[in-house]
Amino acid sequence: MDSVDELRPPDRLLMGPGPSETHPRVLRAFGTPPIGHLDPAFVEMMDETQALLRDALMTDNEWTIPVSGTGSAAMEAAIGNLVEPGETALVPGNGYFGGRMAEMIRRAGGEPVTIETPWGEPIDPEDVREACAEHQPSVVGIVHAETSTGVLQPEMSEITDAAHEHGALVVADCVTSLGGVEFRMDEWDVDAAYSGGQKCLSCPPGASPLSVNDEAMGKILERDEPARSWYLDLSLLDEYWGDERAYHHTAPINNVYALREALRLVHEEGLSARWDRHERFSAALQEGLWALGLDPVVAPSARLPSLTTARLPGGLTPGGVVETMRESHDIEIATGLGAFADEAVRIGCMGHGARRGPVLEVLGALGETLVEHGIEVDPGVGVAAAVEELRTRR
Amino acid sequence: MDSVDELRPPDRLLMGPGPSETHPRVLRAFGTPPIGHLDPAFVEMMDETQALLRDALMTDNEWTIPVSGTGSAAMEAAIGNLVEPGETALVPGNGYFGGRMAEMIRRAGGEPVTIETPWGEPIDPEDVREACAEHQPSVVGIVHAETSTGVLQPEMSEITDAAHEHGALVVADCVTSLGGVEFRMDEWDVDAAYSGGQKCLSCPPGASPLSVNDEAMGKILERDEPARSWYLDLSLLDEYWGDERAYHHTAPINNVYALREALRLVHEEGLSARWDRHERFSAALQEGLWALGLDPVVAPSARLPSLTTARLPGGLTPGGVVETMRESHDIEIATGLGAFADEAVRIGCMGHGARRGPVLEVLGALGETLVEHGIEVDPGVGVAAAVEELRTRR
Repeated sequence: MDSVDELRPPDRLLMGPGPSETHPRVLRAFGTPPIGHLDPAFVEMMDETQALLRDALMTDNEWTIPVSGTGSAAMEAAIGNLVEPGETALVPGNGYFGGRMAEMIRRAGGEPVTIETPWGEPIDPEDVREACAEHQPSVVGIVHAETSTGVLQPEMSEITDAAHEHGALVVADCVTSLGGVEFRMDEWDVDAAYSGGQKCLSCPPGASPLSVNDEAMGKILERDEPARSWYLDLSLLDEYWGDERAYHHTAPINNVYALREALRLVHEEGLSARWDRHERFSAALQEGLWALGLDPVVAPSARLPSLTTARLPGGLTPGGVVETMRESHDIEIATGLGAFADEAVRIGCMGHGARRGPVLEVLGALGETLVEHGIEVDPGVGVAAAVEELRTRR
Repeated sequence: MDSVDELRPPDRLLMGPGPSETHPRVLRAFGTPPIGHLDPAFVEMMDETQALLRDALMTDNEWTIPVSGTGSAAMEAAIGNLVEPGETALVPGNGYFGGRMAEMIRRAGGEPVTIETPWGEPIDPEDVREACAEHQPSVVGIVHAETSTGVLQPEMSEITDAAHEHGALVVADCVTSLGGVEFRMDEWDVDAAYSGGQKCLSCPPGASPLSVNDEAMGKILERDEPARSWYLDLSLLDEYWGDERAYHHTAPINNVYALREALRLVHEEGLSARWDRHERFSAALQEGLWALGLDPVVAPSARLPSLTTARLPGGLTPGGVVETMRESHDIEIATGLGAFADEAVRIGCMGHGARRGPVLEVLGALGETLVEHGIEVDPGVGVAAAVEELRTRR
């Protein structure tokens, strides 16, 4: 075998759909020598991480843990434990991650039913109410922040009301909202929620938030047959993260260190200040994009601050633009997914990336890139619009 | 909520069953800013990590990847993909991890059959042959290095021969052997093998080696129904780690950085030199333990270098000794598990811990601890025996 050279990743600015820019303190925590996963000192850090996680999710749920994997592991932990074989579960049809929920429901032995809504639009609570009446699902999945389209689901309380009227539990995907966009788990009556580290929490992926309330955990503990994954079985994980501290599997210790530090940063800044910051800098980013001639995919009422999906001017396809941004400017943005794969770019404004420097850098580089791809535009107009937006918002 | 203090883990010497001591270069890799999981530069690192992993496993298997979770995730990826509903699978009854295999087989819809063997003893290939003849399993699980008992399974080729004669595929657990104890995947005809980072690879847990050969992957790709976990579905993971590089889930980027660096260290040292080092320093550790009056649980012919299980002198129970080692000496060792929970300690000699300093430190502290717990022993006798063992082995 040829020898493999030292680790020398390029120095990218991460402004895509995630991973986002990482805070230096989170990286420092990551590189801290691990202790044992059953060490009393680690158990104390687990308690602290759980408390910080409850705080970030605005929940009192006892069953709030980091799952030992990336966001999809937390998603499958939620769905695979809550959906029992033979049960029906609703999923949103307006983006990529509803489709992933459906796939996981099938793996769990359940029957997914899709609430049909065009990509780029939010789900109407009335549609949830009607689908619940028709299909009597045990679980309703909803994506609070759709990373594939940039849709922020409004009226979360109306959706949980509709589901609860029919006795269904609500599982919410807050992967791209937690820590950056208002999400109130208890106030909105969400029964289970999961997230990832690498979006608005600005923590490299590997330990992923999950919280379930008493009703949801009651259903899990009363399952007729155990969940189909041992690794993600919440009734067993509870023995490790709960009072017993029984060995289940080895936790990803350094990922817990990093997530704990990322959550400390959320706590220090304050949730509401953090939501405001994401709102302010994403508004600046979006004004810059429109000034450069990009067109928003999502209507203002459902537009996600942390991820913007926009069509390029002049019928440009996204692939080449994404490549130029990466190769010439060391900036990661992404193409659209699914329905928007060939027509839109996705630009993140998350966590440590939701700041003046990264926003101006991405707009400046994008202006230059558009010119390079033959678009007639003043390359500085995006940056100027962003600066003006920030000035008027002060 | 009370504010949570800065990350200040104690400075433990990790000489238990894992996590083991981490090499400084691995920690440095961990704290490196991530790039995107679909970035071409990351894809190149994935290729390199896969090549290094094949090298460490001594296999040419194309399907060799780090699973996005800790060792148990890799274990469930192997079992959950290979065992189909209604199939029978054999598991070893001589330790804790055979029991975990059985649990995962049940979750996969299969029927586990245990090869009954006392804890602390290896499996007899003849027993595998007989059980295969009687139960016609599709899969035979075997634990190459039992972390619960300190048994190294000899005669791996005889076991795979016995299984293959009956058309069964062999899944081997090499969590506590890979990178520290001889393991030859292709030469021994092992069909699927999984491991963890936090043992002899000296890498914090979170991305875990898995390799399957063509026969095993053939079975997986021809399953009647998909695997029961979407997150761990190897047919989908292959699209990300294989030539397509299609997005499946977000990889734990920094864990891949760290595992890559850990595997570079294995490659630099050389596998055989690394096995020798583990053998030499574990012999020193074991001579020291016997000198201090501890009794080996496992016979020499099946004694694992990387983890030693030993009964304490004077009928001492392990709990108090483990606690004193931790609280007075900042050293992690562990109690036994299962059959040995109340009678033995488990002491690791893995990866970056398989060196003179850590071995002498654990023996010196253990001598002092035994005296503190009322055992009449010269506390320095363990260290002296280890030094002598190392001298005679030069």
